[in-house]
Amino acid sequence: MNKRGTKPAKIDRLEPQVRQGLIVVITGNGKGKTTAALGMALRACGHGLRVCILQFMKGDLYAGEWDGVKKMDCDIELIATGKGFCGIQGNPYPWAEHRANAQDAIELAREKLAGQCCDLLVLDEVNNALKLKLIDLKQLLDLLQNKPPLLHLVLTGRDAHPRVVALADTVSEVHEVKHAYRREIEPQPGIDY
Amino acid sequence: MNKRGTKPAKIDRLEPQVRQGLIVVITGNGKGKTTAALGMALRACGHGLRVCILQFMKGDLYAGEWDGVKKMDCDIELIATGKGFCGIQGNPYPWAEHRANAQDAIELAREKLAGQCCDLLVLDEVNNALKLKLIDLKQLLDLLQNKPPLLHLVLTGRDAHPRVVALADTVSEVHEVKHAYRREIEPQPGIDY
Repeated sequence: MNKRGTKPAKIDRLEPQVRQGLIVVITGNGKGKTTAALGMALRACGHGLRVCILQFMKGDLYAGEWDGVKKMDCDIELIATGKGFCGIQGNPYPWAEHRANAQDAIELAREKLAGQCCDLLVLDEVNNALKLKLIDLKQLLDLLQNKPPLLHLVLTGRDAHPRVVALADTVSEVHEVKHAYRREIEPQPGIDY
Repeated sequence: MNKRGTKPAKIDRLEPQVRQGLIVVITGNGKGKTTAALGMALRACGHGLRVCILQFMKGDLYAGEWDGVKKMDCDIELIATGKGFCGIQGNPYPWAEHRANAQDAIELAREKLAGQCCDLLVLDEVNNALKLKLIDLKQLLDLLQNKPPLLHLVLTGRDAHPRVVALADTVSEVHEVKHAYRREIEPQPGIDY
């Protein structure tokens, strides 16, 4: 609604003649990939869809979305798996541990798809997990190829694999034009985590 | 937490030594700009921040986020202003009406900033509104230059103005690699609106 401006004569409500579960990939090196997936989750909740967010390589560093989703009065589940970003400075865990965690996560994703217990499944940072060989290409392609037709699957992370991109319906690449951290501004809660 | 994988030894919580309100711009022609802003809103709510989302040129077409934010048990307000996208096929409203609505919206933004009644203010599609001359560059620059130091300001929409980009701390450009609608897949609730 407008505060002072005149309202539109009517509000239209789109309703697709054919419902279809989409594969959406958000990749690239810029800020806004995980956040876009969270936004889709918020939007999906508005439509009454059931949402599950599986975060790969996260769990060692608090993120605001962990509590954000708890404040949502809707069917939304967020599971942070892993031990942080594999291979980045300061991360003390060996590759094999990251791999074991990611393998658990991909198995969990398979169960979520098989159980048809959500309408939107976000695999956050899964592109990175594949790039780092924490999961195998075949495992991810199997998920994409066998997803329930009405389920939306959102994949985030840098370096999306070309075969994943080929299977996707919608792919966006987020490019960094500039980022506060390059001017040594510390990560700020609510924006950066 | 992990379902089966071992948990990290500890969860760190970043806390910046210096809190700073950032100007974040999400621009480009790809899907994920408004959704990224919504994700930041969700994340900010997790941190207990107060959020206001002002949507320019929206209000004629139902969007899932309108109900999504209502399901959030936190201090979040979403105001859809306007009468839809100015100048796109099917939009029946003349430019002058769009301009009047956008002028109301920018005035509302100014009041929100002056009243310091939120910690994160999203001006959704404001870049488009400027490009279409529904608001003036000076109006937007005045907002950016006079924002409270701790307030985060997120601006979305294509064609961000170079002077807006120059003032921003973090800027991402979302590029379309592919989009379902080009294969004539209808917009799907929860993903596209």
